[in-house]
Amino acid sequence: MAADGAPTVGMIGGGQLARMTAEAATALGIGFRVLAARADDPAAQVVRDVHIGAHDDRAAVLAFARGCDVVTFDHEHVPAAILEELEAMGVSVHPGPSALFHAQDKLHMRKALSAIGVSCPAWAEVASAAEVDAFAEHAGWPVVLKTSRGGYDGRGVWIINTATQAAEVMSSPLADGACWLVEQHIPFVRELSAQVARSPHGQAVAYPVSQTVQENGICSEVTAPAPDLSDERSVQAQHLALRIAVELNVTGMLAVELFDTGSDLIVNELAMRPHNSGHWTIEGAVTSQFENHLRAVLDLPLGDPRARADHAVMVNILGGDVPHLYSAYRHVFARDPGIKVHLYGKEVRAGRKVGHVTAVGNDLDNLRVHARHAADYFSGRVDE
Amino acid sequence: MAADGAPTVGMIGGGQLARMTAEAATALGIGFRVLAARADDPAAQVVRDVHIGAHDDRAAVLAFARGCDVVTFDHEHVPAAILEELEAMGVSVHPGPSALFHAQDKLHMRKALSAIGVSCPAWAEVASAAEVDAFAEHAGWPVVLKTSRGGYDGRGVWIINTATQAAEVMSSPLADGACWLVEQHIPFVRELSAQVARSPHGQAVAYPVSQTVQENGICSEVTAPAPDLSDERSVQAQHLALRIAVELNVTGMLAVELFDTGSDLIVNELAMRPHNSGHWTIEGAVTSQFENHLRAVLDLPLGDPRARADHAVMVNILGGDVPHLYSAYRHVFARDPGIKVHLYGKEVRAGRKVGHVTAVGNDLDNLRVHARHAADYFSGRVDE
Repeated sequence: MAADGAPTVGMIGGGQLARMTAEAATALGIGFRVLAARADDPAAQVVRDVHIGAHDDRAAVLAFARGCDVVTFDHEHVPAAILEELEAMGVSVHPGPSALFHAQDKLHMRKALSAIGVSCPAWAEVASAAEVDAFAEHAGWPVVLKTSRGGYDGRGVWIINTATQAAEVMSSPLADGACWLVEQHIPFVRELSAQVARSPHGQAVAYPVSQTVQENGICSEVTAPAPDLSDERSVQAQHLALRIAVELNVTGMLAVELFDTGSDLIVNELAMRPHNSGHWTIEGAVTSQFENHLRAVLDLPLGDPRARADHAVMVNILGGDVPHLYSAYRHVFARDPGIKVHLYGKEVRAGRKVGHVTAVGNDLDNLRVHARHAADYFSGRVDE
Repeated sequence: MAADGAPTVGMIGGGQLARMTAEAATALGIGFRVLAARADDPAAQVVRDVHIGAHDDRAAVLAFARGCDVVTFDHEHVPAAILEELEAMGVSVHPGPSALFHAQDKLHMRKALSAIGVSCPAWAEVASAAEVDAFAEHAGWPVVLKTSRGGYDGRGVWIINTATQAAEVMSSPLADGACWLVEQHIPFVRELSAQVARSPHGQAVAYPVSQTVQENGICSEVTAPAPDLSDERSVQAQHLALRIAVELNVTGMLAVELFDTGSDLIVNELAMRPHNSGHWTIEGAVTSQFENHLRAVLDLPLGDPRARADHAVMVNILGGDVPHLYSAYRHVFARDPGIKVHLYGKEVRAGRKVGHVTAVGNDLDNLRVHARHAADYFSGRVDE
């Protein structure tokens, strides 16, 4: 606790989520400490109170947690055993390790969601290409093959059309504790994200449901609220996310990534932290996902999640052939004085998320054109 | 310049203005360095790249400026000689020392504004109570006595009713280089603030004119746009601020504090930095004053200054008898999930600005009640 009575929140992981959470912590006057792998991680560049260390280094995490009132996460990869030790030491961990394990292990997540009757793709744990083949006989090709642990941004996920392809993927060694998971390939009309914040004492708020577009497994574009989503379907998605948050005892932000098949909503993935699908909330909602994550893990009353404008469009800036993103500012800002740009301080590499832009307002088509153009200019996909 | 091509802006002074500018710099991915007097200054608590040193310590300022692409300010108090030396070294200083001198020295400001025909209160440089008395014979009592340099938040300003009072005030020694200034006391119907951003290449944008309320010389409440201000008067105030920015060659944010007499606008003070009257822009405008200050001093195209809602009300949190501001969060947030709170990490002292709250929306009376209540709760003026 700081001299002025404000608690310190420790976030493990120094990526852009921690960087954007830091802005919210500064405004709230809350102490904020980051455990970053490297001094040039996005959050480590801007946060005063940084520890450098690995998220799976028990000693580093324990040292980091001393002096934190709450420990929370920029990613899902901290081993459960370390988090359980933190809790045993009396450190408040949100989301707690048993909740977080659902976001760490996709097999565990599928089992838990199936047990509470939430719609998931048909799934099975498999150990061989033959078992994938057998699964596909019922589910049909293609199938989705996943490692249960360690994947992100499209890594650890393969669309598989034949047993031969499955055998090839499965010839790679699995990470410690991971297994192979096969899932039915869902023909969706679009993907949605339902985000909620939930606090330890059980208050929860639901954000407007957003529509997400993925390219090569990486979130590319988010529109909030999801266009032409019926009130009924929207409420269904929000209820689903709130129910999952309660049943899995999630604290902090929860993102439920959904397939909208046109007739049903099917859960794809869960994330228990601020999420790319909620970056639009910084300018687009009364209370951003980053502020509400902090308020939730501190067990403070949650902020209003409602949208501030008719539409918000967020487009990720993916690394392209413009090495110095700053050089794009003159053009992007001159073209659209209302565009909001967030750059993460990352080295530009092809396809890497290095920032995002958000446009909010009333004319959706126009917002899309502006946000897409700005992001493409930063990526070097357009040059005027 | 950072590895990713982004420049570093150095801000001299580690107060809340630097703290809030840091949030904008983080979002833009711009390097941000602060020269703070103490490690527990508001900005020094949260900014990664902090130098500790005095703003009037030549060596400290020169060392700080090395590696900064632009030097700018959280306050007006850096001696002009040091800034001129920085410029001679090739450091870009915005606002430049000759512009900034108008905000540092009120006599200089009055001379310059009078020379360009801007409406000011009648004023005179005085050296004795007898001269104050002579001035009051024409201007009438009361008069306003000011030290030309070093005042802020009501310090260095006295309302004087008699020559005896003037003699008493003037018996105190003046700061180096300062003199006494006497001004006509303007009977105003309200106070306004006209804020503009201007860049070195000459682009400028004007924010909606706000109405400010002072208590004991400290800004207490700001409403934007100023209620019931005619379009004509509003444009007059914006033109006045734009003209002053051009004539005085101001770069960065300029706040022109105005007396609205009902029939005219008269300039009270100038500030060449983000200003308390513009804190509402964080949530209330498309581009905040902090972002536009950075964009201006970096000579980037300026952001849209327009309001995002019909009304914004900002109320300062002044230190009261609640030592730990954090303890008020539970109540304040539970009462109004939409209120936006900014705490500066300052030790609570009576009457000190320790944070602010902003409410934005369509119902002005309701916003005022909510913002005032939240600020009063933090100050301990109300307890439910």
